[in-house]
Amino acid sequence: MNAEFDQVREKVTKSFLKQTIKSTIGATIESIEPGEVTIKMPFKEGLSQQDGFIHAGVITTIVDSACGYAAMTLMPDDARVLTIEFKSNFASPAIGDFFIASGKIVKSGKTIMIASGDVYTYKNSEEIDDSNEVINHVINKDEGKLVSLMQASMMVLNP
Amino acid sequence: MNAEFDQVREKVTKSFLKQTIKSTIGATIESIEPGEVTIKMPFKEGLSQQDGFIHAGVITTIVDSACGYAAMTLMPDDARVLTIEFKSNFASPAIGDFFIASGKIVKSGKTIMIASGDVYTYKNSEEIDDSNEVINHVINKDEGKLVSLMQASMMVLNP
Amino acid sequence: MNAEFDQVREKVTKSFLKQTIKSTIGATIESIEPGEVTIKMPFKEGLSQQDGFIHAGVITTIVDSACGYAAMTLMPDDARVLTIEFKSNFASPAIGDFFIASGKIVKSGKTIMIASGDVYTYKNSEEIDDSNEVINHVINKDEGKLVSLMQASMMVLNP
Amino acid sequence: MNAEFDQVREKVTKSFLKQTIKSTIGATIESIEPGEVTIKMPFKEGLSQQDGFIHAGVITTIVDSACGYAAMTLMPDDARVLTIEFKSNFASPAIGDFFIASGKIVKSGKTIMIASGDVYTYKNSEEIDDSNEVINHVINKDEGKLVSLMQASMMVLNP
Repeated sequence: MNAEFDQVREKVTKSFLKQTIKSTIGATIESIEPGEVTIKMPFKEGLSQQDGFIHAGVITTIVDSACGYAAMTLMPDDARVLTIEFKSNFASPAIGDFFIASGKIVKSGKTIMIASGDVYTYKNSEEIDDSNEVINHVINKDEGKLVSLMQASMMVLNP
Repeated sequence: MNAEFDQVREKVTKSFLKQTIKSTIGATIESIEPGEVTIKMPFKEGLSQQDGFIHAGVITTIVDSACGYAAMTLMPDDARVLTIEFKSNFASPAIGDFFIASGKIVKSGKTIMIASGDVYTYKNSEEIDDSNEVINHVINKDEGKLVSLMQASMMVLNP
Repeated sequence: MNAEFDQVREKVTKSFLKQTIKSTIGATIESIEPGEVTIKMPFKEGLSQQDGFIHAGVITTIVDSACGYAAMTLMPDDARVLTIEFKSNFASPAIGDFFIASGKIVKSGKTIMIASGDVYTYKNSEEIDDSNEVINHVINKDEGKLVSLMQASMMVLNP
Repeated sequence: MNAEFDQVREKVTKSFLKQTIKSTIGATIESIEPGEVTIKMPFKEGLSQQDGFIHAGVITTIVDSACGYAAMTLMPDDARVLTIEFKSNFASPAIGDFFIASGKIVKSGKTIMIASGDVYTYKNSEEIDDSNEVINHVINKDEGKLVSLMQASMMVLNP
């Protein structure tokens, strides 16, 4: 994007760094585009439910953040974002090496934004090439597996 | 309840202890009744979003667990529970001293159970009595404040 | 209630009469209380899905209206109501003689209201008394059967 | 598709024709593909809420049907489909000349299928060409406007 959008990226990044939950679960921002944000989280001990899968609430944490920050990219400079509500369906157990949550704004209103989110799980595919280096495959949705699908409403909070 | 339900309580408790997320967020089971389970979580550092409130996903973690275990109390001995989907509305910021999440089964089918959940926040009200002891008030919904409302579908997984 | 609430009742009734869908499906308002509205609909030909049950969308129509008007009872005089979103679970097939949809506001904010709704189905229980008159039983939730459960967000539209 | 899928198309069409609601609201099937079904409905008197828009419940009726039949295309021959639950967000008022509801299966399980649905509204754009014929523009999502977004769970009912 342009210089203007760099300010938006900075605002989103700054806000994300204020989240203390991000460190607890190991989440990092992968990308910030207009109306679309992705967040990455590795599989980690201490986040599982009774069967050893990452708890549905933790999966929801990263996709809610992705949807909220996707909304923030389309808001006025001084506005804050608030999750009004979300709904998540769960498609597969949250196992794997890492998770990518995407949030995308499908309708941007003055007060309410509608977001679509999803979480895919990936395995680290390692390939040893001729020179013996280990290379992780580039993340590719076609290689991932759908874990969860979200539909959410975000609110624009003007100061 | 009776001796039979004691076994159900034991099954639920055992399952909950297998969750590693419960320790990370400090959640404990408050009560287990037929079709209804409550979970308590204190306000804790490391669980907040950018404004200092407990992240919506963490609030969702405890109420999803409450709804899932409420479903488990009505299932056959050897069945496991799976969250198909949930939807949460957020009524107030998740601040306060502790949170109580309740899950209640409103329709118990052979394969699918419908659960209603809520999370209330409470302040520790301290009273210094004559003998100078600090006593926490008994938890009372009328003194709490609604944080979140959940509607969920739980699936019965027979072996 | 008091005289002031009579104006609210009138506003809600007037608005409901403007709905053309209400006649198509045979819906009528049963009661209007502060934060709570109930709507009745008989089983009727022309509203069914492929198995002969009333279509889930029609059941949703009456409970959405009940939730929306429940919200309207708590709004300023000149405000309109808008459904932001709803989520419905379906507990039993929509068969029976008539349906009662209830909408209740569980959180009333300045801009957003959270509503809980449900739809129960009833059979006309007929009793022939000594004087040979047919009397329908009074509607009683304990005699009805849960068809659908809704959780919704309503928006206050100020002029 | 192939001859086998023609049978699926026939099954879906037959089931849709059993719906009595389809005639009441004027809905017709537009297309049936594996895991994806679209339904068309014209703007019609008798389906509106208080502001003259098509009632949210009617919009939900067509997109629920689209999602349900999308699920049916992926089911065994003798299976029936049941809506467990759906969640709809509303993006714009349901006005316009006609509506197209699409339902698409994003996860196809043995028992549960997750569907994504949307409803777009269109205006009849008329163009009078040299030969004086009136031609409706081909339907094009880029020309339509998002009315509603659905996320739903469909159940496979084996006999």
